[in-house]
This record gives sequence, C-alpha cells and structure tokens, in this order.
Amino acid sequence: MCQLLGMSCNVPTDIVFSFEGFRRRGGLTDEHADGWGIAFFEEHGCRMFLDYQASATSPVADLVRNYPIKSRNVIAHIRKATQGVTSLANTHPFQRELWGRYWIFAHNGNLTALPPLTGSRFLPVGSTDSEHAFCWLLNHLADEFPTMPALAVLHRRLVELTRELAALGTFNFLLSDGRALFAHCSTNLHYVVRQAPFSTAHLSDADVQIDFATVTTPQDQVAIIATQPLTDNEYWRPMTSGELLMFVDGHPRPLLPANAHAS
Amino acid sequence: MCQLLGMSCNVPTDIVFSFEGFRRRGGLTDEHADGWGIAFFEEHGCRMFLDYQASATSPVADLVRNYPIKSRNVIAHIRKATQGVTSLANTHPFQRELWGRYWIFAHNGNLTALPPLTGSRFLPVGSTDSEHAFCWLLNHLADEFPTMPALAVLHRRLVELTRELAALGTFNFLLSDGRALFAHCSTNLHYVVRQAPFSTAHLSDADVQIDFATVTTPQDQVAIIATQPLTDNEYWRPMTSGELLMFVDGHPRPLLPANAHAS
Repeated sequence: MCQLLGMSCNVPTDIVFSFEGFRRRGGLTDEHADGWGIAFFEEHGCRMFLDYQASATSPVADLVRNYPIKSRNVIAHIRKATQGVTSLANTHPFQRELWGRYWIFAHNGNLTALPPLTGSRFLPVGSTDSEHAFCWLLNHLADEFPTMPALAVLHRRLVELTRELAALGTFNFLLSDGRALFAHCSTNLHYVVRQAPFSTAHLSDADVQIDFATVTTPQDQVAIIATQPLTDNEYWRPMTSGELLMFVDGHPRPLLPANAHAS
Repeated sequence: MCQLLGMSCNVPTDIVFSFEGFRRRGGLTDEHADGWGIAFFEEHGCRMFLDYQASATSPVADLVRNYPIKSRNVIAHIRKATQGVTSLANTHPFQRELWGRYWIFAHNGNLTALPPLTGSRFLPVGSTDSEHAFCWLLNHLADEFPTMPALAVLHRRLVELTRELAALGTFNFLLSDGRALFAHCSTNLHYVVRQAPFSTAHLSDADVQIDFATVTTPQDQVAIIATQPLTDNEYWRPMTSGELLMFVDGHPRPLLPANAHAS
C-alpha cells in the first residue's frame, strides 16, 4: 500500500512542513520506500517531481524541502509497490491533459478486474492498477463532457464513477485539476482545515513544530489531506468509506444535488 | 527566441556536462532567462524539471547538475519569451500521452496564424504558439493512427505535418517519445555524434572539459543536438533548413521512402 498527501488552499502556500513529516514515512518512520512523487499546481501550470528512490533519502525530496514552492493545490504520494515493478513509469502522481487543463492523480490501494481500456483516448504508460483507473475516469469524463463542466457537475459525476471502481478493491485517491482537489476514501484518509486563529502544530514523524500564526494572514485557509494524520496535536477528521470530498480554496464543499445546479 | 538541447543515446547516459554549458545561456552567457525545463525518459517513464527562474541560477537546475540522471532521450529548453507570459504553464518542454507513451516537445522560434484546435483531443494549457503547435501535431497523429505506427512511418508523416507548420514562421523543435528523438531545423540546430574513439571535449560557455574516454565504453553512441554548438573543439554539423532528423540510439536515421517500409 502507499500513502497520500494533498493540500488545498485559498492562497499559494508552501507544503514544506507537512512534506517533511510525510517524506519520512518513505523509508524512515514507515516502509513506503518504492518511489515517491509530488505535483504542484502553479496557476494553470503544474510541475511534478518524481523519484523511484525512497523519499526519506531522495536528493529530489531534499530539493522539495529546501525550495519552498507555493501552490494552491498539491498532491504527493509515497509508494509501497503492490502492482507493477518499481520504476519511474509506475511512480505516482500521474498527469494527463483534459479540456486544456492538467489533471493529477495518486492512489492508495489495490484494484483488480479493472474494465479494459482498449481504444480509449487515455492509456496507461506504466503497469499499475492506479494509472489504469485514472485513465478510465478521464476517458469517461472526456466522453461525457466535450468541454469542462461546472465543478459541482464534475463532483457528482465523479461520485458515481468512483463508486464503480471502488467496488473492485481499495480506492483511496487524490485528484486535482488545479481548481479543485477531489479526495476519495475507501479505507484511510484524514484531513485537517487550518484557519484563523492559527496555532502551533507538531509533526508525528519528527520533532518539528511550526507556529502557523507567524507565517499566515488571518484570511488564509489550508486543508491538508493525508492517509494518516501528520501532526499529533491537531484534530484530523477521518473520512468515511465511500466519501468523496471536493476541496476548493482550503475547504471541503458540499455535494450539491443536480437540481441545485440547475437552479 | 529560445535555445534547445537534446540527447539521444544507445545506453543510459547523463547529460551533466552538456547541461552545465547550456544552462549558463539562461541568464549568464546569454539572455534566455524566462524559465527553462528538461525532460528525461527513463524506460517508459519520463520526468521533467521545470522552473520559471533563469537556468543559470535556478535551484532546480542545481539539482539536475548534481544528480546525474541517466537517460537515453533527453530534451531541454531555455526560454526567452516571444509569445505568452513568463509562467510555469508556458515553460517548455510540454508533455502529453499518446498511444500509451509520453511525448515531449520543445520549440525554438515563433509561429503565427496557427490553425485552430477547437474540439481537438489535445489542447494547450498555456498561451504559447509552441504548445499549440505540439497539440496540432499530436491531434493529427492521433486521428490518423489509432495505434502507434512504426518509427519510419511516423518519421515520414512528421516531415509532412511539420512542413505545414514551418510555413507559418520559425519552427526549430525537438520531439521524443522515449524511443526516437525528432529534431527539426528551420533556422538553427546543430548536432554532434560522439562514439569511439572518444576524446576530450571543452565547453564554449565555461572553462570545463571532460575526457569521454574515461566515462564511456567503446560501444557507446551519443548524439547531442543544440541550437548552437556547446563545445569549441568538436565538429557540430549544422542542420539545413527544413531538415527533420530522427535520432535513435545516438544516430540520425535516414528518412525511408514509403515503399522501403512496405518491403
């Protein structure tokens, strides 16, 4: 299995503090040492850093720690291989373009008997169930929506599509197009929303703490989503099995019924 | 305008020596300081490092210099903006997936009156002529070939498609799917093929030299393609205007006529 880390914010924010705890689970405080990756949206652009070395010791992870990239939507993943060899092609997150936007996806879990993709527009490059599932989702969205739908419409459709795949195994995932960050829980996903009044947080995986009041403004809102809580003195809400949250600007948004969108 | 750097090899090779000269042209020995990027294929996988800072001083470029990634196909680009603002979304190279392979593209030049992409499968995320041209090429390939054609077929079709775009301005580009590296010259592109007996090369942009005999085996073949020669003591063959070379395993391959492929 693997671990996921996501961030959604209303202002560009660096993820250095959370990443410092998270990366240690890749070979130091936990066993997820078969590669890692992180994707940062910066406006419409997106940059990813991938490595098949363990995140605890990867020189690329050192760069990410030392070079605070500010982003409003981030997805990171540390891998313990279940399907597919350890290689760059099998390293999450995965990226595709749809509707003139980049889409980023990372998965924690294991899916079997996935529907075939023959003749599909999006095809996996590597051999993981995760990239296969990502392509399946995007193929459906591309077929159904010639242009980008409203986020509320996308949210509802993703809930339905995800239900189909989640029936095939464990399907915790993070998905983002740089506007919204979708988080689906099968078994393990937690989140915390940080907002004023900010306080001090302490990492679970290292004796490191930060006083967010000193690095934020009162308007800042930041949601951190992770497989397991990253700090030991904040309340992380456990997501429930089957829940798919859409985070925008640092907050989960309610799933609107179809008639709410039509009004 | 911008500058391009490409590498094609028969064994995974690091590009640290060439990149050390090339990156200096991004703000130190030349004016291409509006961002830079580099993409490394590693088997089927691909990783890119992008930054909108000048390559001469970018911390990401320091990582690329200090972390010798071995690859058989590399494309790098330093940008001096002509169309589109300086932003991550406008930073080359660009990446898309087609036929279950990643495709990487970087462009030096300026195109105007590009054909529209409305309703196309591949759409640009940023606002450059370059990404627009890349999407146009991929759309045509995707429409014409439901599955990946042989490289010789692809080479011939790219020659024809490129001719259409090259009529719209300056269109020096590098394109790769990790098997072949296609290099098209409108105005400026040079290459050198390094093979046994290897000798010492000296950078034009820094007082740095390397004795390739000490870091290679007699079977190694490496082609380096660059807008302007990177060394001052090797022969760099200038490509001719309109020439589109396909490099495979460190050598340019001849453009085969259609009947040669059929035989």
